[in-house]
Amino acid sequence: MTLKNDLVLRAARGEKVERTPVWLMRQAGRVLPEYRAVREKMGGFKELVETPEFACEVTIQPVDILGVDAAIIFSDILVIPEAMGLPYQMVEAKGPWFEKTIKTADDIAQLRVAQPEDLHYVMDALKLTKKTLDGRVPLIGFAGAPWTIFAYMIEGSGSKTFSKAKKFLYTQPQLSHLLLQKITDSTINYLKGQIVAGADMLQLFDSWAGILSPEQYNEFSLKYISQICDAITEVPFTVFAKDAHFARVQMGKLSCDTIGLDWTMDIAESRAMIGNTKTLQGNIDPCLLYADYDVIKKEAVKMLKAFGPDRHIANLGHGLYPDLEKDKVRCFVDAIKEFRF
Amino acid sequence: MTLKNDLVLRAARGEKVERTPVWLMRQAGRVLPEYRAVREKMGGFKELVETPEFACEVTIQPVDILGVDAAIIFSDILVIPEAMGLPYQMVEAKGPWFEKTIKTADDIAQLRVAQPEDLHYVMDALKLTKKTLDGRVPLIGFAGAPWTIFAYMIEGSGSKTFSKAKKFLYTQPQLSHLLLQKITDSTINYLKGQIVAGADMLQLFDSWAGILSPEQYNEFSLKYISQICDAITEVPFTVFAKDAHFARVQMGKLSCDTIGLDWTMDIAESRAMIGNTKTLQGNIDPCLLYADYDVIKKEAVKMLKAFGPDRHIANLGHGLYPDLEKDKVRCFVDAIKEFRF
Repeated sequence: MTLKNDLVLRAARGEKVERTPVWLMRQAGRVLPEYRAVREKMGGFKELVETPEFACEVTIQPVDILGVDAAIIFSDILVIPEAMGLPYQMVEAKGPWFEKTIKTADDIAQLRVAQPEDLHYVMDALKLTKKTLDGRVPLIGFAGAPWTIFAYMIEGSGSKTFSKAKKFLYTQPQLSHLLLQKITDSTINYLKGQIVAGADMLQLFDSWAGILSPEQYNEFSLKYISQICDAITEVPFTVFAKDAHFARVQMGKLSCDTIGLDWTMDIAESRAMIGNTKTLQGNIDPCLLYADYDVIKKEAVKMLKAFGPDRHIANLGHGLYPDLEKDKVRCFVDAIKEFRF
Repeated sequence: MTLKNDLVLRAARGEKVERTPVWLMRQAGRVLPEYRAVREKMGGFKELVETPEFACEVTIQPVDILGVDAAIIFSDILVIPEAMGLPYQMVEAKGPWFEKTIKTADDIAQLRVAQPEDLHYVMDALKLTKKTLDGRVPLIGFAGAPWTIFAYMIEGSGSKTFSKAKKFLYTQPQLSHLLLQKITDSTINYLKGQIVAGADMLQLFDSWAGILSPEQYNEFSLKYISQICDAITEVPFTVFAKDAHFARVQMGKLSCDTIGLDWTMDIAESRAMIGNTKTLQGNIDPCLLYADYDVIKKEAVKMLKAFGPDRHIANLGHGLYPDLEKDKVRCFVDAIKEFRF
């Protein structure tokens, strides 16, 4: 199927685009009243993730309502630990919670390497969404980076410091590598499955990149991200390592197409560190969208000019916050789409 | 009174030292069983902060037990909002909580500029500690940086995103500056009072520096930190802005003596950005102290060599975590003290 709008894919590949494309992390979510209506009907977050027709519905909502240039499948990075044998619950207002966590070599040995069929509901959601989108915009698939998945599997929940997960790195480096490799193998299988199911592009989220030292990040995160980048050759691939300011030079050497930036990373400095062979994605502070309309427009244009016309996909530096107003979000998207260099 | 050990002060001023001095953020705290015993006797955290003889006791504990080269007064950065008219509670396992927060111009107008006498219990604790220390090591006083204090005054509690505080910056920039100036004036009064009460050195903690964009950080944080640095000329002054990797070049231009680094900041890169006229403080990941003794020793020495013999005060890149073992912490301190270049 030919895409009617392939701006995001072309920008990722470094091809010329008529205007900078835009999509937003967490664009399918609480910021849309239409999403909240589906959630109310469904009950839990996981039921929504696991029911392809509803996941498809909320995935397409921001394309209709916000006019973004890509859809990203509504799912969760923690489906991978679950597929490996570590189920979790999503506790309202608290976040993810794992009843069992990884503590020993035996715990790791008992985990299986996930296969695409273990995550059939994601594959079904991708297929249905791809069909329903009917080529309007590209469909993005995603997974968590191995270090971030590891952090949840050891810690068992969200945390400010993830000190249990980091303690494991410091005290059990060999077991850590065993577990990270198993997560990496699962993630490659999962992402390959997403391509077969219809994903036009893929993104890896390293949400907890910023709590490691540069040296630990090289050893326990980038090494595995690099394996995944090398394995995914079929579609454009984006790596977003939140707060990993210290890893920008090395990230420029990954065999991926696009690097995500957060808003603490200066644009010109990041371009200089990463080089000209990567597309950059980002990097507005989500809190900007609390501002007045004229401030939002002004800052959107300022960001576009700082990135320049080539190799940029406009986005936020993190996901949308649930209490942002839909009209402000739409204003940001429109400001990007209206601007011409 | 002549100090028997003034290594920290000399290192801060860039003078030659026989060995690199060391102290640890949160060295007075839950990591010491002796602290936990005082806490049990006292009840709440705030009672401890507000009772000079107990604050003095726990301030000196790590000098006796860990052998650190400085004492830092046991207190809390949130005494400033309280002295300005915004009381808070410290809720067990949850953190600080303000019943009233700042929302309007009128709320800001009603705040007073704090004077040292509003914080007489801190001044009394400093005087008593200075006397009890009897010149063994320097006594460090501290305050929160204006942006961090502002963040709590608007948000009313800790937060992952401080999105209310950031929303206020984006929607009410003029009111934000009014409030930040009032906090700055209060902080200068407070720090001047601490010098009179006996502090040999002062540190400013910008705990939430890392959630602002570089531009916002310049406008809403560094501007006020700079005023404070200019006002404090009597004793060595340290600025520690956690996660403010993007502000290192500008921080090198502050009129302070020492810049704190966290463990995500590469040492050589930070030295190049900050220049040679500042002492650097830090920057071990607190989680290293979960590792085995030999790993702790090896990493301590590696850090010392990376910083080099001059203009370095050894510390962590954040406060000690409460579940670290005292003997591991002591091992780190000893490794620093035993090393010679």
